[in-house]
Amino acid sequence: MDTSPKFAVIGGGSWATAIVKMLSENVETIHWYMRSQYAIEHIKKQDHNPNYLSSVEFDNNQLSLSNDINKTVAAADYLIFAIPSAFLKRELDALEISLEGKVIFSAIKGIVPESSLIVGEHFEEYFNVPADSIGVITGPCHAEEVALERLSYLTIACSDENKAKILAKNLKSEYIKYKLSKDVNGTEYAAMLKNIYAIAAGIAHGLNYGDNFQSVLMSNAIREMKRFIKKVDNTKRNINDSAYLGDLLVTGYSVFSRNRMFGNMIGKGYTVKSAQMEMSMIAEGYYAAESAYKINQEKGAKTPIINAVYAILYEGKNPKKVIKKLAENLN
Amino acid sequence: MDTSPKFAVIGGGSWATAIVKMLSENVETIHWYMRSQYAIEHIKKQDHNPNYLSSVEFDNNQLSLSNDINKTVAAADYLIFAIPSAFLKRELDALEISLEGKVIFSAIKGIVPESSLIVGEHFEEYFNVPADSIGVITGPCHAEEVALERLSYLTIACSDENKAKILAKNLKSEYIKYKLSKDVNGTEYAAMLKNIYAIAAGIAHGLNYGDNFQSVLMSNAIREMKRFIKKVDNTKRNINDSAYLGDLLVTGYSVFSRNRMFGNMIGKGYTVKSAQMEMSMIAEGYYAAESAYKINQEKGAKTPIINAVYAILYEGKNPKKVIKKLAENLN
Repeated sequence: MDTSPKFAVIGGGSWATAIVKMLSENVETIHWYMRSQYAIEHIKKQDHNPNYLSSVEFDNNQLSLSNDINKTVAAADYLIFAIPSAFLKRELDALEISLEGKVIFSAIKGIVPESSLIVGEHFEEYFNVPADSIGVITGPCHAEEVALERLSYLTIACSDENKAKILAKNLKSEYIKYKLSKDVNGTEYAAMLKNIYAIAAGIAHGLNYGDNFQSVLMSNAIREMKRFIKKVDNTKRNINDSAYLGDLLVTGYSVFSRNRMFGNMIGKGYTVKSAQMEMSMIAEGYYAAESAYKINQEKGAKTPIINAVYAILYEGKNPKKVIKKLAENLN
Repeated sequence: MDTSPKFAVIGGGSWATAIVKMLSENVETIHWYMRSQYAIEHIKKQDHNPNYLSSVEFDNNQLSLSNDINKTVAAADYLIFAIPSAFLKRELDALEISLEGKVIFSAIKGIVPESSLIVGEHFEEYFNVPADSIGVITGPCHAEEVALERLSYLTIACSDENKAKILAKNLKSEYIKYKLSKDVNGTEYAAMLKNIYAIAAGIAHGLNYGDNFQSVLMSNAIREMKRFIKKVDNTKRNINDSAYLGDLLVTGYSVFSRNRMFGNMIGKGYTVKSAQMEMSMIAEGYYAAESAYKINQEKGAKTPIINAVYAILYEGKNPKKVIKKLAENLN
């Protein structure tokens, strides 16, 4: 009898597709939920996701595709959630079966808007998933480079190291290395915050600030991230580890980053609404900026960059003026 | 009688030219030494440096140009050295007048090959310049962006804060902000080490590693830099300040970086010699790699990245194999 754990990926976007690809290097059957029946049919016939990372070919014998989340969740022990945080609640509302005994890994980089909680906390709070069955998969890792099989490093965090190890072993390959961590909250907050900083980088770029400024912005961002995370979870961590600084850099500097692209459009003069309409993908940092700003109203960390992004995105402040003022406060 | 200090810039390259431009926003007369009489004549007639940042227009009434280093040094109180470290000794050998009473600022990012000392230490050791008359001008700051008047941040370090302030006030402008520091050695080592990491980034890029890997490399590089500098000068510093992390990022990520470009050529299969011949500018990191490697033989910090670059540049090791092995040791 096969006692190895069964894995499910929840989501049909690029990061979900990349995770399925990683698992497919090791796992016999991957249970894969996505909303779009059209995409499922396409994968079944054409062996690739029509919308994301379409260069990645799958072996359909390895895939158990479904657009019924209950079926996918029922079939697996390890559930990897990789959908935009803004859509998580909608998907979970459809859940009819219990999560008891399931191990939940969040590959979501954001905050659940309805609960203002990071994903792990949301599962703990609303689904009674015990903390030691909750983990995080984080980068620095662009899905697009997984598709290209370019060497990438994941950080797998779980307070139960054994669960982190089991997942890590099933994700690793020639081109995927991993590091284990116990800092579930810290890595998840970092993954969320970095998207806000990527938006800031994009806005500055759109306003014609150069590389010199960007490097100062990133240097300030990592110090701000450290202060913020310390306020919400005061554990010992090296903020320069790949899961924090590396993840910030890959997002802040990469042309693949949709958050940076979104910011760039804002900097170039698009309104928030028109920038969102132009982009077919969700910029997680948009929601993260509001959540982080509000969380920090209580926590009181010094966060000039988050405040600047919030002012531009939610208070209709002029990007040029806000970034000019921010620049006075950087060092 | 005018008692304000007089400033001289030693060097005719892009960074020297950028510093003269910054000073020209504030200083009436800038004494400017460069080796090339041709370039001097060109600046006098055409108002711009023919070889570097030629878009920058100078007002010749502000410039006192000379190709006699003794004349330039004699005329000034503050001497800003901005020549490749490999050429510093040759220039200083021509010096016939005393440096007594002069304030020396190094804008050189490297180690003096002949003495294996950073520039400040070299002046202290061989010219008896007191430590409190030695300072450092560091970035993150690409000369090319100063030419474009894009907002940039300098760090001015000197144990005598008053001297740092005097220089800073004469460099600042609408597009130049500054921060003062007392970490003369740390900022200078950082400026030297970052060039080695930029070569590593270039080599990896040339070998087709992607953004995910680069971010892990940079995240490891800043931790390595922290260990190295701590071994050579154990002072309290925040390695994520702009002078350290920011400077690393602007060099490691920017297309303007000649060190990254040099590494890229090595990664693409050029020999060290042919890469050097292709480039008309000196890649400081080439010399820095040897010096840092040798210094660390005594100090014993864990420096896998420096070791890898040294092995490729000085031991003729295969870049592909060395970086593959390095990748195993990153996290």
